[in-house]
Amino acid sequence: MTTVATRLIARLRELGVEDLFGVPADYNLAFLDEVHASELAFVGTCNELGAAYAADGYARLRGAGAVLTTFGVGELSAVNGIGGAYAESVPVVEIVGAPSTRAVDAGLPMHHTMADGDFGRFERLHAEVTCDRVTLTAEHAAEEMDRVLRACWEHKRPVRIALPTDLVHAPAPAPDEPLLPEPPPVPRELVAAFRAEAAKLLAGAVRAAVLADHLVERHGAHEALADLVAAGPLPVAAMNMGKGVVDESAPTFAGMYVGAASAPGTRAVVEQADCLVAVGVLISDGNSGGFTHAFPAGRTIEVGAYETRIGDAVFRDLPMAEALAVLTTIVRESMDRPAFAPPQRPVRARADADPHAPLTQAALGDRFAGFVRTGDVVVAEQGTAFFGVVDTWMPAGVTVVGQVLWSSIGYTLPAALGTCVAAPDRRTLLLIGDGSLQLTAQELGTMARVGAAPVVLVLNNGGYSIERAIHPTDAPYNDIAPWRYTDLPAAFGAGDRAVVRRATTAAELDAALAEADRNRDRLVLIEAVLDPEDYPGRLAAIAAKYRAKTPAVAR
Amino acid sequence: MTTVATRLIARLRELGVEDLFGVPADYNLAFLDEVHASELAFVGTCNELGAAYAADGYARLRGAGAVLTTFGVGELSAVNGIGGAYAESVPVVEIVGAPSTRAVDAGLPMHHTMADGDFGRFERLHAEVTCDRVTLTAEHAAEEMDRVLRACWEHKRPVRIALPTDLVHAPAPAPDEPLLPEPPPVPRELVAAFRAEAAKLLAGAVRAAVLADHLVERHGAHEALADLVAAGPLPVAAMNMGKGVVDESAPTFAGMYVGAASAPGTRAVVEQADCLVAVGVLISDGNSGGFTHAFPAGRTIEVGAYETRIGDAVFRDLPMAEALAVLTTIVRESMDRPAFAPPQRPVRARADADPHAPLTQAALGDRFAGFVRTGDVVVAEQGTAFFGVVDTWMPAGVTVVGQVLWSSIGYTLPAALGTCVAAPDRRTLLLIGDGSLQLTAQELGTMARVGAAPVVLVLNNGGYSIERAIHPTDAPYNDIAPWRYTDLPAAFGAGDRAVVRRATTAAELDAALAEADRNRDRLVLIEAVLDPEDYPGRLAAIAAKYRAKTPAVAR
Repeated sequence: MTTVATRLIARLRELGVEDLFGVPADYNLAFLDEVHASELAFVGTCNELGAAYAADGYARLRGAGAVLTTFGVGELSAVNGIGGAYAESVPVVEIVGAPSTRAVDAGLPMHHTMADGDFGRFERLHAEVTCDRVTLTAEHAAEEMDRVLRACWEHKRPVRIALPTDLVHAPAPAPDEPLLPEPPPVPRELVAAFRAEAAKLLAGAVRAAVLADHLVERHGAHEALADLVAAGPLPVAAMNMGKGVVDESAPTFAGMYVGAASAPGTRAVVEQADCLVAVGVLISDGNSGGFTHAFPAGRTIEVGAYETRIGDAVFRDLPMAEALAVLTTIVRESMDRPAFAPPQRPVRARADADPHAPLTQAALGDRFAGFVRTGDVVVAEQGTAFFGVVDTWMPAGVTVVGQVLWSSIGYTLPAALGTCVAAPDRRTLLLIGDGSLQLTAQELGTMARVGAAPVVLVLNNGGYSIERAIHPTDAPYNDIAPWRYTDLPAAFGAGDRAVVRRATTAAELDAALAEADRNRDRLVLIEAVLDPEDYPGRLAAIAAKYRAKTPAVAR
Repeated sequence: MTTVATRLIARLRELGVEDLFGVPADYNLAFLDEVHASELAFVGTCNELGAAYAADGYARLRGAGAVLTTFGVGELSAVNGIGGAYAESVPVVEIVGAPSTRAVDAGLPMHHTMADGDFGRFERLHAEVTCDRVTLTAEHAAEEMDRVLRACWEHKRPVRIALPTDLVHAPAPAPDEPLLPEPPPVPRELVAAFRAEAAKLLAGAVRAAVLADHLVERHGAHEALADLVAAGPLPVAAMNMGKGVVDESAPTFAGMYVGAASAPGTRAVVEQADCLVAVGVLISDGNSGGFTHAFPAGRTIEVGAYETRIGDAVFRDLPMAEALAVLTTIVRESMDRPAFAPPQRPVRARADADPHAPLTQAALGDRFAGFVRTGDVVVAEQGTAFFGVVDTWMPAGVTVVGQVLWSSIGYTLPAALGTCVAAPDRRTLLLIGDGSLQLTAQELGTMARVGAAPVVLVLNNGGYSIERAIHPTDAPYNDIAPWRYTDLPAAFGAGDRAVVRRATTAAELDAALAEADRNRDRLVLIEAVLDPEDYPGRLAAIAAKYRAKTPAVAR
């Protein structure tokens, strides 16, 4: 006989979840006993926000992630991570160990509540940051968990499942069908109608182009997209949130499209296309160069997760990969092949003439570009770090994890824990600023404890430089405590599982990166010391545009 | 001309708020410029949860506290601290730097949102954890902020004020009346009716007693309570949440009342009273020995913040201090004075015969009792630390900060930052477990940066011992990373502003505490190494009772 707990664990495994991040607490200890007895590994983090971020990073590589908290205090500590997963379309299952149904029915003033008998507060609160949620009941736990887990998978958004302590061992029917049934075939008429409409724009295009964003990755449409690009071949640009979803080493890669802040060649490919296929694109200030994007009016095919738009025509219930397959067929069969001119690849100048001069962001970017390799997972904090990474044309097969929309500083360190656990055979490179690191630094200890071996580049520029870039000030509020970053792994108990280096020049950085290459089985933390007002080029440009444009609408 | 920002700052100052905790971020930078130019000091913390906890600790000493976050990400990181302030009745003002009204009106997909044009999510979410909230408008900012700040003060609960970036410098009328007007006099008829009803129970009582809880402190009724106790004199017991609200050095102190887990003498004083005056009492599992409390039926006067109940009679709009004054008059004028027998003071045996044996919780409690002094602020984590502290009869004038109801581990370290900033002339003693410390440890660096000089006792028992106490297991989920706690201050940049010691025996602890006494101007961190299964006596008792009683209702 299965129980509510064993059934839930089995369903998580069906989603590809093999590791559960979280913090033990009294309302979830009984469930943890079941986890301990199962094939689901528990990864205890220092705090719940770290667990939620880790589950997010894990989900980006595995297709789903899960976090375990306790009622009230634990879930509220995690909620910013859940909100981030919602904003960035990451399927994270939050399991909340909750007071027993008998305590709830009796309205008892339990700890971790407001002592007012209202046990619904935190589920209601989660309506703002989850796409579905449920408090399991003895009568319907099986159907309820299936419904919510399916919503998580379909919408690629977080869900909350509250598991009362007295239901952990309650009986539940074993599943009689897979959690994720085969999707129904797309009706032929829908495909035909879409094909006809798309062909009007695409078949005769001579400057067709593709623009790809993060939802391609979330909805597993990588290969369908690659097929489309190769079929032309068509030039393909990527949005910031979609960094890494296309092969940047291929001649088809046209660069990062960030509206007016794009490289001229990239901007021309997108904005002057006579048919632009925009796949899984989300517009936000940070993803569009401050709303300076300009897609070709009346000549854009917008391919979404489950629907595609061409002007006023909307094709619903058409999954992204299916739509892309239709477009690929059009390109292959009907398109007048234009002569494909590969976009010009930017030449990266070796930034520092003198490798013993103080380290600069330019030199750091240069070294990073030489260090990153096929298969790496690059986790880049939404500060100067991300702005430096986004301009690097990556080798094939690199996954980039960032938070362009949600932009919660401190996200990436626990997210990198998540990517390390999700893909132990790949190397995780984390780039994080000092200000961001201070929010969630303790999970460095968790990394060491679980044997994770990332390379952590701490960009120490003495505070919140991204805030200085967009709002210059002499006031001290952007300054932070002068941590000794290279002391952290030892203080957090890493022992000989960590190697640390400090780089104040390009030469020292070169030596440190070489040391990282010699220590692939250990956590390597490199503190890169930078000037507080040295911004990566694109950040300086975007900050200027943001400040010039936004007074009228957004400041 | 005042602006929205300068007026808000002036109103905060009226509440006694001289320090604002928070994290800078783009939506709040313009407001931070105004703070920088004002007499309100900004205390930047490592993360927003730390800021919220610090504001809570500050508010417990100052009467109000304030935290500054940014929209979405920042406020969600802080929300567990706000929820804790709600549960524990702590008036914390959260100011959220928000997107401009023009961005909101245009429905722009801004960063830190879900990019869906819904800017109301986080205000709605805060309905569950605040007593009032508002997004300031150009038209009514003055009235709106006054309304919400008054609610915070009246209800002693947190509020959220969202300040759109474009309103920071908008004009606002200067206040023409104080934020907190004089309360209207209590009607004579109400006082007379209450007095008559209370006298029926109290005037003839021969075993009258008082039971005090945390709301006495929150509503500023310390002195009124002390007057009542002295008038008898009457024996007075305290609830866990009210630890420190009565003078424990006086002969009237009858000990801590925790239901069936109380000392027999304390239990008799409360449960066998022929009139019990219960002041500001909240019942929760942790505050009542797992619902084993038993107040004398029909002979209890329940004095609340704004209303008092005697059986079925409810006296509304009667402030706590006024009600206590009436009761004091009854005792002075009408009571047949019983011979007052001071409750028996427990004798603390010197715990360790051999000071060089491994340190025990008993020895630690013994040393702590000898170390704490009049005027200290004791901050005790709701783990083994609090259970150890609660049994110590404190000198006069000691304030105790804990979280019995909300019980969010990690709370106390940032809360101690808050108490240090709130009362720099008092010594803050923090007692925190290793598991709890790992959640929020980085604010040790903030303490050092702002020159705070607490004594931090880290109870290192290798993980979550309180969870082991209530749910014994051999599974490894209660284990944590083996941090080197004494390395933390240096890693967090404390330099010579911190002193560290490690104590594995009572003798080493004695030496470390003596060192703390010699370094009153520096942060002193003492790691006390304890056995993982060594529980303070009362925790062992409560855990046993909790487990025995709760299967039927709460597990």
